[in-house]
Amino acid sequence: MIQEELLTLLRNKQYGAVKTLVQDMNEVDVAEAIEEIFEENEEPETLLRLFRLLPKETAAETFAYMHSDVQQKLVELLSDNELSYILDDMYLDDYVDLIEEMPANVVKRLLQISSPENRKLINEYLRYPEDSAGSLMTNEYVYLKPRLKVSQAFDVIRKTGIDKETIYTSYVISGDRKLEGVVTIRELLLADPNMLVGDIMNTNVIRAHTLDDKEEVAKLFSKYDMISLPVVDNEERLVGIITVDDAVDVLQEENTEDFEKMAGMAPSEEEYLKTPIWKLAKNRIVWLVILMLSSMITGAMLEHFEAAIAAIPLLVSFIPMLMDTGGNSGTQASTMVIRGLALDEIEPKDSFRVWFKEIRVALLVSGGLALINFARIVIQYHDVAVAAIVSLTLIATVCIAKSLGCLLPMLAKKLKLDPALMATPILTTVTDAASVLVYFSLTMNILADRL
Amino acid sequence: MIQEELLTLLRNKQYGAVKTLVQDMNEVDVAEAIEEIFEENEEPETLLRLFRLLPKETAAETFAYMHSDVQQKLVELLSDNELSYILDDMYLDDYVDLIEEMPANVVKRLLQISSPENRKLINEYLRYPEDSAGSLMTNEYVYLKPRLKVSQAFDVIRKTGIDKETIYTSYVISGDRKLEGVVTIRELLLADPNMLVGDIMNTNVIRAHTLDDKEEVAKLFSKYDMISLPVVDNEERLVGIITVDDAVDVLQEENTEDFEKMAGMAPSEEEYLKTPIWKLAKNRIVWLVILMLSSMITGAMLEHFEAAIAAIPLLVSFIPMLMDTGGNSGTQASTMVIRGLALDEIEPKDSFRVWFKEIRVALLVSGGLALINFARIVIQYHDVAVAAIVSLTLIATVCIAKSLGCLLPMLAKKLKLDPALMATPILTTVTDAASVLVYFSLTMNILADRL
Repeated sequence: MIQEELLTLLRNKQYGAVKTLVQDMNEVDVAEAIEEIFEENEEPETLLRLFRLLPKETAAETFAYMHSDVQQKLVELLSDNELSYILDDMYLDDYVDLIEEMPANVVKRLLQISSPENRKLINEYLRYPEDSAGSLMTNEYVYLKPRLKVSQAFDVIRKTGIDKETIYTSYVISGDRKLEGVVTIRELLLADPNMLVGDIMNTNVIRAHTLDDKEEVAKLFSKYDMISLPVVDNEERLVGIITVDDAVDVLQEENTEDFEKMAGMAPSEEEYLKTPIWKLAKNRIVWLVILMLSSMITGAMLEHFEAAIAAIPLLVSFIPMLMDTGGNSGTQASTMVIRGLALDEIEPKDSFRVWFKEIRVALLVSGGLALINFARIVIQYHDVAVAAIVSLTLIATVCIAKSLGCLLPMLAKKLKLDPALMATPILTTVTDAASVLVYFSLTMNILADRL
Repeated sequence: MIQEELLTLLRNKQYGAVKTLVQDMNEVDVAEAIEEIFEENEEPETLLRLFRLLPKETAAETFAYMHSDVQQKLVELLSDNELSYILDDMYLDDYVDLIEEMPANVVKRLLQISSPENRKLINEYLRYPEDSAGSLMTNEYVYLKPRLKVSQAFDVIRKTGIDKETIYTSYVISGDRKLEGVVTIRELLLADPNMLVGDIMNTNVIRAHTLDDKEEVAKLFSKYDMISLPVVDNEERLVGIITVDDAVDVLQEENTEDFEKMAGMAPSEEEYLKTPIWKLAKNRIVWLVILMLSSMITGAMLEHFEAAIAAIPLLVSFIPMLMDTGGNSGTQASTMVIRGLALDEIEPKDSFRVWFKEIRVALLVSGGLALINFARIVIQYHDVAVAAIVSLTLIATVCIAKSLGCLLPMLAKKLKLDPALMATPILTTVTDAASVLVYFSLTMNILADRL
């Protein structure tokens, strides 16, 4: 691996070779190699030396790609001068991310080193709530005035573009910074140099507001196939842009959060291997306790039917199958609906349509399962009554599970709760109770004479 | 809503107003409005008339954004001339998608209408397997020769760029079409017009090969923050590019597939509301049958312990709680690990580290749960022996569930199977059996005198 090669070269003090090697590598890969070296508990000097060998132009970007614990170590090791060079060279959104991750004393030092303008901007950007579009913004964009000629626009882009995170799209703003339109490099390149920016710009601009939810904003990227999106304040003044790479990260984070919530866990911000065990335990135990307590309801029902169980102990052996099948069918429905809601393929107004679909699927599926069970029980135990009870319970359980599986997430969405909370764990608990109730109600009625 | 406005205008034959309205709308929104009108079973003429009122420049793009059933309807309604205009204006990747979605007779017509060059390209692109990088490619990219001057490069971009899906990045290729480097518009704009492209290009190009798995390729986009990626064949010749919007779609599709697999369903390609119920039932019943049959193992165990149940029927009432808690704890662990594997945060070589983490979490969590249970059973039933059995079973179940929950997905990954298959349903079934076995083994030993 490349990081082993790097480490060997460093240990042999072949710094020239290290320099050549990292020059040709992508910043992301360099950052990854540095992280691996950090995790292998190398001496801080090795880390520092390697970082100092990076090309000046890419050091800041490489730094931005590192995990926060490596960043913190480097901040501690670097001199104020070196650090201020890195900070000045970083994109503002990466800089804000860095500040948010560091402990208070490090933040203090970073802000002291920053230029006054940067300090002011950072403080402004830090004010946006964590889940808002504002928190994703960067100020590295090119803006043009509508009365510029296309040829002048290129001069502006050349002059201001070197620092900008994306120069593919330029934003056209009025004197009071109101967003009036966008124009892409493609359109500028293909236009007559004497035309006015205001005449070729597109005025129908898809935009976000600073306080919009960042997940909704990320979805705009995937819906409209954009690579950057302007963010405006309440007065429609342009305050920043969001780039597609950050939107992709948000989409992936939101997916991870949904996976975690659907498995009955509090979502975690950190990577799995970096999360301490007490934190993992804390994220998990709350739901486990709630679910454990509620599954005692099913237990209490079983207690209620103790006499029936004592009379026909065979009945107990079908309970796991009934409970599991109910849980699994419900999970299938709720997953489809939760995912459909997340992707905006389903809306709460489709509730009846979705339920009608699920109930027909439930009848088809449970019919098949009931048939298999009926045959098996008759053959194995020669007990048609028990076979009928189990099969009917199965059909009822699957229908209940699929109905709840689709309706609970819809209801959550309507109540402005997160549909992902209505997934497997909570559903299993509810359908368990339902299936036991149906099972023993049928038993009490059909097998009354044998109890 | 805008589609109601459109529909009213169309019905009142106010075509001028429709034209103005759609001119200012984004293509994605127009496509959505047309889909809604189609779903409301409007007469085909309304659909056709609306489509004909679209601005010429955006008709093809709007068409590309529509769902395949609307596309098919339109293909049937449009004349050969109109259709060939649309097809010529579409990006090649959208065109290939269209061909893949249409029934055979429509494909035949489409290929007949296409220009011979397009027909040849389409046939070439169709040959790539569905899950490969090749299937995502488009040929709309700008390529430059290394010996061009920067100023000449702009001429090439201007001349060829109008049709290209992204002109932000240009690809530098040798005489035999081998990919030698990339250069961005930003770099070209900031460079001296007399420099050679070959001197400013970046030669360390992140690339995909035509047969690479498309999920892995999509992950490259999120790892390296790219907006386009070149695709090369076995001889490193440039054959196409992939753009970030398609990569985002792949990431979302793969996430959906993981959600579906983790809920014990065969993944479906279509949107939920558009999938026929027999297909939903088919996707779901296979796993349900497998899981139902395997949960009979737990049932058979319970049957084996019939005597114990008849002697102490109270035992049965704790089974749902034990089974559910086992299932839920296992789900938590497997979800974390499956997601970690999907995001490349965890690798199979981390197996021991992950297991060691999970087992400590399991002890922490189950200790807490066991304590709650022990107290409750002693208070409610004054039966210390049963309380001890239930609490110990709980600890064992959670430890087994968390261990299997992390190790099964790791094992799947190592065996080159999909880790997502080792999720809730299969795990629940296995931990159910384990918890019942532990429960009654403990009972047989501790309560031997009461049986």
